[in-house]
Amino acid sequence: MKLLRVGERGQERPAIIAKDGSLRDLSGLVDDIAGAVLSPEGLARLAAVDESGLPLVAPGARIGPCVGRVGKFICVGLNYADHAAESGMPVPPEPILFMKATSAICGPNDAVCIPKGSEKTDWEVELGVIIGSNASNVSEEQALEHVAGYCVVNDLSERNWQLERGGQWVKGKSADTFGPIGPWLVTRDEVPDPRALRLWLEVDCRRYQDGTTATMIFGVAKLVSYISQFMSLQPGDIISTGTPPGVGMGQNPPTYLRPGQIIRLGIEGLGEQNQITV
Amino acid sequence: MKLLRVGERGQERPAIIAKDGSLRDLSGLVDDIAGAVLSPEGLARLAAVDESGLPLVAPGARIGPCVGRVGKFICVGLNYADHAAESGMPVPPEPILFMKATSAICGPNDAVCIPKGSEKTDWEVELGVIIGSNASNVSEEQALEHVAGYCVVNDLSERNWQLERGGQWVKGKSADTFGPIGPWLVTRDEVPDPRALRLWLEVDCRRYQDGTTATMIFGVAKLVSYISQFMSLQPGDIISTGTPPGVGMGQNPPTYLRPGQIIRLGIEGLGEQNQITV
Repeated sequence: MKLLRVGERGQERPAIIAKDGSLRDLSGLVDDIAGAVLSPEGLARLAAVDESGLPLVAPGARIGPCVGRVGKFICVGLNYADHAAESGMPVPPEPILFMKATSAICGPNDAVCIPKGSEKTDWEVELGVIIGSNASNVSEEQALEHVAGYCVVNDLSERNWQLERGGQWVKGKSADTFGPIGPWLVTRDEVPDPRALRLWLEVDCRRYQDGTTATMIFGVAKLVSYISQFMSLQPGDIISTGTPPGVGMGQNPPTYLRPGQIIRLGIEGLGEQNQITV
Repeated sequence: MKLLRVGERGQERPAIIAKDGSLRDLSGLVDDIAGAVLSPEGLARLAAVDESGLPLVAPGARIGPCVGRVGKFICVGLNYADHAAESGMPVPPEPILFMKATSAICGPNDAVCIPKGSEKTDWEVELGVIIGSNASNVSEEQALEHVAGYCVVNDLSERNWQLERGGQWVKGKSADTFGPIGPWLVTRDEVPDPRALRLWLEVDCRRYQDGTTATMIFGVAKLVSYISQFMSLQPGDIISTGTPPGVGMGQNPPTYLRPGQIIRLGIEGLGEQNQITV
């Protein structure tokens, strides 16, 4: 299934892409794409619904973030060997974790605001993993059972704030609109191998990132298991699994976003995002 | 006012300590101590209520975390000059920020679970600041208007996970029960000077921390203003403002928590927490 949220900011309604490609409103069945709806039972219930009986979503509706009530937005740093190299950092012996403020979350096609005082706003296409059920100290073998699905994430980053303002990365990862997620959550059953997905990002039609999740250092099962040793995971938590090479900081000379640019990014099978910078 | 939340985990009801010292149930008036209830208008509405007409809370009820629906748990590192010294770290030129997972939050007297595999679980008494209204790029002069009140925080920390497992502190700050908050939120009007509060922590009756917020490097107004440059703040967000000297890591030799110990901590005017380690 492809699940999404449509409507104005803060008032999004749950929706699904039906088999015939139409967009159907789920708000008669579930309150949100969030919480228990993301559990194996919740998703099974949705999968059993006859979509043709659901109301159509009005054309042109805004697409919001694909998950609601996100409790934690956990990011993995330097998880592609070639991106670590372009960043001038060693390949980490175990996953580097950092947080992104949940207030940074926005819809996949919302404007990206370059924050006041920023000179180094950068892009990062990433595979997002959406947790479906509580996970604490889970093994790698069991980890994927706690995954509801996947989505596209743009892990926008202010490099000066991330790296030159006091040592912890969260400072450069958390501005409003720095976390577009979606357009939809694709359930796990439709992504048989999360390590075989192409992912790409373009700014003003120039392709900067063009990678594959095959070069990830730590895979999804390993990451879910690893993170669950340090903190418990709840339905709706998002893990953003790191970015392949081609970020602005890695260009020669480094290239950062300016107002009025267009960012397009996507992951094979998970859809595309389109953002204008302001 | 002193506002709190009572009842079983996940089912806490809002409550207030009345002027006569009795505990009164607010659930007929507000849904939670959270969100818009924390705004200046929401607090003014509560302040105007005749408490004597409210139902009494049954004696012996568990006290839960003093704020609900916390969106972000932002911590400030090394914000006391003498604690920075005991940690062997330089005094930071600007605030160090890191996140604690909101899933770490628990009640002030809940058991603290030493996580599986931990050998260096440590304590930190801290002044918590609870945001009452949206704040983005606010000046130092305006910052306190966005503060609903204050509470006691124990910023429990696994030092190996924080410092020796990959560079970002969140890993050692986020285990379940690593964030007791409360017992109550004391509204800002009752704390005229947040830089003149004694704060202390004891383990098994031995006093390890005995400081004052007067030695904080960056004060509350500065911190709220500073953080709001990097991310927007919402009602219910918590800022934990750093710890004075006396943490376990700073003892000679370093001393960490074991199961079966009792932690007591408090801040002048903000109440006390009592935890048993398991």
